[in-house]
Amino acid sequence: MKQKLVECVPNFSEGRRPEVIEAIVGAIQSASGVVVLNYSSDVDHNRSVVTFVGALDAVGEAAYRAIQAASNLINMEQHQGTHPRLGATDVVPFVPLGGTTMEECIKLAHDIGKRVGKELGIPVYLYEEAAKRPDRKLLEQVRRGQYEGLKATIENDPERAPDYGPAKVGIAGATIIGARNLLVAFNVYLTSDDVKIAQQIARVIRASSGGFPHVKALGMLVNGQAQVSMNFTNTTVSPLFPVMEAIRREAERLGTAIHHSELIGLISNPVLMDVAASYLQLEGFDKAQILEYKLSQAIDQNKFILE
Amino acid sequence: MKQKLVECVPNFSEGRRPEVIEAIVGAIQSASGVVVLNYSSDVDHNRSVVTFVGALDAVGEAAYRAIQAASNLINMEQHQGTHPRLGATDVVPFVPLGGTTMEECIKLAHDIGKRVGKELGIPVYLYEEAAKRPDRKLLEQVRRGQYEGLKATIENDPERAPDYGPAKVGIAGATIIGARNLLVAFNVYLTSDDVKIAQQIARVIRASSGGFPHVKALGMLVNGQAQVSMNFTNTTVSPLFPVMEAIRREAERLGTAIHHSELIGLISNPVLMDVAASYLQLEGFDKAQILEYKLSQAIDQNKFILE
Repeated sequence: MKQKLVECVPNFSEGRRPEVIEAIVGAIQSASGVVVLNYSSDVDHNRSVVTFVGALDAVGEAAYRAIQAASNLINMEQHQGTHPRLGATDVVPFVPLGGTTMEECIKLAHDIGKRVGKELGIPVYLYEEAAKRPDRKLLEQVRRGQYEGLKATIENDPERAPDYGPAKVGIAGATIIGARNLLVAFNVYLTSDDVKIAQQIARVIRASSGGFPHVKALGMLVNGQAQVSMNFTNTTVSPLFPVMEAIRREAERLGTAIHHSELIGLISNPVLMDVAASYLQLEGFDKAQILEYKLSQAIDQNKFILE
Repeated sequence: MKQKLVECVPNFSEGRRPEVIEAIVGAIQSASGVVVLNYSSDVDHNRSVVTFVGALDAVGEAAYRAIQAASNLINMEQHQGTHPRLGATDVVPFVPLGGTTMEECIKLAHDIGKRVGKELGIPVYLYEEAAKRPDRKLLEQVRRGQYEGLKATIENDPERAPDYGPAKVGIAGATIIGARNLLVAFNVYLTSDDVKIAQQIARVIRASSGGFPHVKALGMLVNGQAQVSMNFTNTTVSPLFPVMEAIRREAERLGTAIHHSELIGLISNPVLMDVAASYLQLEGFDKAQILEYKLSQAIDQNKFILE
């Protein structure tokens, strides 16, 4: 990949009104030089995830426009959903792709955070690689108490003072902006309607209770089905395969099974390759054995004349 | 993929003398406009597989040069190996990629077969999509009796008359040339040295004894380890996942297990994607969820300016 690109995967607290989601996506697309790769909504979570890419400045401008649009269209006083959230635009991660560095994404997070705080009057917290304080590195820590809890404490608790913007929450809530590496959002549904089983499995696999490093997990009830909702923040250290095996074993132990799974947003090809290679117990597997990879290399090296 | 390319995956009856393999690869590379993507050798099979691509004519010329080189360097009278074979260049499949049609690959197989028969005096059999007779469609049928059996019968048995070249076998043996779709060569090693177990598993999974359609399988002993050696000739109809599951179950029933597996040559990315999606029980998975795929689309559509 030669282009110096940034991926941005903002999460919005609206998964039920298509016209609102389309208006936010439209605001992103109104910035020139960005391409929306994917967006999906979940009715139970009442949340949408958009993935878009572009050059550094273009992505920053698009993210700002999306935050502005969401603040005009979503009222956190009325928002209900199973997924934790702080604001209309809940979280905005910038992800370096190709030749872009993490430092460039951190600077972008700061620049956009400052602008959102100042121009839109929304409290902004910086997280992950862009965090100004170690206790704000983890998204779930920044989000504790959710919108309602933050609203009740932000004005009086100096610990909750935002990194940018006013120490006061309006109906758009607060927005968490940061920089991180590629993340996989992956949910496993169980053949059970018992949310306690999903919560027990989540406890077994997640880093915060002694499970796999860089794995976050919550047990939820989605559409009447128990769901283990996961984020993988470093698939090099904690790939999907051993976590899936652990979920299967723990589900069996608790008298249930995996019904199906789903990917939210996009996944990087090597992450799925690794799942296939692990399942097949492939020895000595290398991406140089992938036909498409070898072909694209040959084409990049201009060994073929384009027609 | 915009280029009109052909993949060629010739198999040579030499897997022990690196200088011979390098000379054959060199002969392929001496034809202009082809790129060797991959080659690998197996000492027990005493066999090498080369994968190269290029435009139609270039690939035909390179295949001819490889067959010529192998006929000068490999003596079938002295060849020993666990894999069935008819000749120094045993099999030469042409595979359509991108905009190339199967018909173009069939014509290429006929053209090269005719030239090999005439100029090199090697008997040529056309197989798979290029077969002139239905009983020569399957590689294993053309190869029955191997080099030694063919040598003993070709001159007197009209059933074994080649499609091109003389009805007489020299020390280079015979060559099987054809056109087919992408194939996966995949071997599973067992935690056992009992070749009978590998043969029993092969019988359970292969099409010819009532198993999975488009799956060929043989049980072998490789490096003292029982191995199920497979070819998948249509992974849309018979993908890898259910076959792997069947191997695991049959191995368990026979008191053994899968030790590891290996891919010979190249594999197409969607075939491994499918393994990952099946293992993860992903619902509604689509290649549009692959980041690299979406990015390459955006780049193809010139939505980003190249630096």
